[in-house]
Amino acid sequence: MAYRLNSLLGAVVEPPIAEVHGWLAGRPPARPLIDMAQAVPRHAPPAAATRHLQERLADPEIVRYAPIVGLAPLRAAFADHIARAYGGPVAADNVAITAGCNQAFCLAMMTLAEAGDEVILPLPYYFNHQMWLDMLGIRAVHLPFRPDRGGVPDPAEAAALIGPRTRAIVLVSPNNPTGAIYPPEAIAAFHDLARDHGIALVLDETYKDFLPTDGPAHDLFTRPDWSETLIQLYSFSKAFAMAGHRVGAVTAGPAMIEQLTKAMDCVAIAAPRIGQEAALYGLGHLAPWVDANRRTMRERVKTLESAFRANASGYELVSCGAYFAYVRHPHRGRGSKDVARHLAQDLGILTVPGSAFGPGQEDFIRFAFANVDGDAMPEMARRLAESRMG
Amino acid sequence: MAYRLNSLLGAVVEPPIAEVHGWLAGRPPARPLIDMAQAVPRHAPPAAATRHLQERLADPEIVRYAPIVGLAPLRAAFADHIARAYGGPVAADNVAITAGCNQAFCLAMMTLAEAGDEVILPLPYYFNHQMWLDMLGIRAVHLPFRPDRGGVPDPAEAAALIGPRTRAIVLVSPNNPTGAIYPPEAIAAFHDLARDHGIALVLDETYKDFLPTDGPAHDLFTRPDWSETLIQLYSFSKAFAMAGHRVGAVTAGPAMIEQLTKAMDCVAIAAPRIGQEAALYGLGHLAPWVDANRRTMRERVKTLESAFRANASGYELVSCGAYFAYVRHPHRGRGSKDVARHLAQDLGILTVPGSAFGPGQEDFIRFAFANVDGDAMPEMARRLAESRMG
Repeated sequence: MAYRLNSLLGAVVEPPIAEVHGWLAGRPPARPLIDMAQAVPRHAPPAAATRHLQERLADPEIVRYAPIVGLAPLRAAFADHIARAYGGPVAADNVAITAGCNQAFCLAMMTLAEAGDEVILPLPYYFNHQMWLDMLGIRAVHLPFRPDRGGVPDPAEAAALIGPRTRAIVLVSPNNPTGAIYPPEAIAAFHDLARDHGIALVLDETYKDFLPTDGPAHDLFTRPDWSETLIQLYSFSKAFAMAGHRVGAVTAGPAMIEQLTKAMDCVAIAAPRIGQEAALYGLGHLAPWVDANRRTMRERVKTLESAFRANASGYELVSCGAYFAYVRHPHRGRGSKDVARHLAQDLGILTVPGSAFGPGQEDFIRFAFANVDGDAMPEMARRLAESRMG
Repeated sequence: MAYRLNSLLGAVVEPPIAEVHGWLAGRPPARPLIDMAQAVPRHAPPAAATRHLQERLADPEIVRYAPIVGLAPLRAAFADHIARAYGGPVAADNVAITAGCNQAFCLAMMTLAEAGDEVILPLPYYFNHQMWLDMLGIRAVHLPFRPDRGGVPDPAEAAALIGPRTRAIVLVSPNNPTGAIYPPEAIAAFHDLARDHGIALVLDETYKDFLPTDGPAHDLFTRPDWSETLIQLYSFSKAFAMAGHRVGAVTAGPAMIEQLTKAMDCVAIAAPRIGQEAALYGLGHLAPWVDANRRTMRERVKTLESAFRANASGYELVSCGAYFAYVRHPHRGRGSKDVARHLAQDLGILTVPGSAFGPGQEDFIRFAFANVDGDAMPEMARRLAESRMG
């Protein structure tokens, strides 16, 4: 008699990226593909970073476990990076290094909530967040999507959703999938709401290095009691082009880090050591390189916005920033998956349908433009103008 | 108002290794330390493997995500490795590559059980197994320790523990912490018991490459329907000296792998890519090197056994094999932590107390001898003979 599987997992939706790529399997698009599906930097890391890692590989320590919460110099360097960027007190014992930001989210959720608890998740959500909560039996309470606010959720609406089992509010800014950059005041309002209710504000800042403006994204770290409410999540993958190395971070109060360490020990023992060396090198040496990439990304945002403005294709830019644009398609009543498949197969533009990001997203499509040269934006807009669905 | 933490995590015991090392902080032992605490190979990987990884780092693909369940060539190579070692049908789609064997266990448990379910765990247990089950609210039902059977648990006793919420039996062979190598007949009996009850047999074979005898450890993979019951876990860390790279594997039925993929996507996205390259290189090139290490380890087992036999110190070897020995100490009535601290501080032998491995283990101490030269074994035995507790 075969064993049974956990029905909670069976009910979790499949990760959508594989399905999207499947649309083109054995069916090459008529035109050169414009791949706006996955949010991964396609550029290589700087050659000096690669040489540094090659040298580090020769150290026998590289094949041994790092401490559970990460290499001490990396924790210190990241704490210093956050302290300087946000102008507030952050120390090494506020930082746990994880094997990527997805893992940071998983660990933070486990440390905060158990089956039956609730977490407030704005729509549209990052699909792995919903998946993880579903698996653990934690109820994701959805905060309505506000296209009229440029995709920025409304703290007042969140207040109405907080109940006795609510353990956290999750925000992603710059947002995946919408690209929306939440104003500092909105982030502060969510913080105060969470603080007043004795729940955590989990702020995923994976895309913080690609903000369209200079200066800190929020002032939360300047508050002396930030660690009583704020849990910041981060990924080194995007800034330093090192997704394959799997390194991220949780920044929080020491009591949170101490408990989270237990979950980290089980899930990973420690983040991979050579990846931690890559992150440490990046923090020490790659700031100018990250700045140059940030400027490139800003230009892409502008080119994308111009391309949408210039072309009355019916595809409407709802929000845009950092890595993503969230677009309302003109084919009302057609499912977002049908529309995205049409874009892929008929127009050679690979995107992810809104349906991947939660209920009520059928009118929307995510465009991940981080890997698309500015030159390709007008071509993309021209193709969108040809969009016809029978 | 500060946020609350998940009380399930608060109740989980701390990982013990840090505490053990703390005993020597600022208090150097009077004699050169014999470190038998952690089970990590201290030898460096072969230089050719390091050179290979240095070359692979130059490939821009290395910084991109691997597929969620691992690089296709690695899945195929590991399936082939298992098929040949155990003489049964194992294909690439039976394999998911994870970021280490702890993660393999975490994912397997999530895919099998939810909060309120039960899993049968023999005593003494590998502490991360108990920790993870506790965190998820899955009840670990303990199978009694059988020092009289050389540490091999009794399938008949397990049968009596299976109830309607039981989802799996977990075995670790060669065992951590006891070193016991379960006979093929015992493993088969547990398999049949699990199969007859429609539950999974989760078999952690992290230390399979250090068996004291040649030939397969069990015949489960030769059964045509193995994938209806068996889930095998593995770590590349020990065989290829690559703990820091974080790579392991789950081998199971395709339906299990498919559901587990969802949890893997959340917890890790994918195992680190350079680590997967290290595992692939190891499977292709390091078999002679692994064999040589296996022979070294066999010699160490023999030297350790001789040292205990030759020395009537009162420390009694209960079981021994692969990486570990489990020893009954002579200080009856004294807690295992007191005894282990005494060994560390007074005799310069670092070990882990039985209490780290579950209830009823106060009379026992784990000796991890993988990193200790055979020459040091008689010296260790001499020191044990001096053991006096006031």
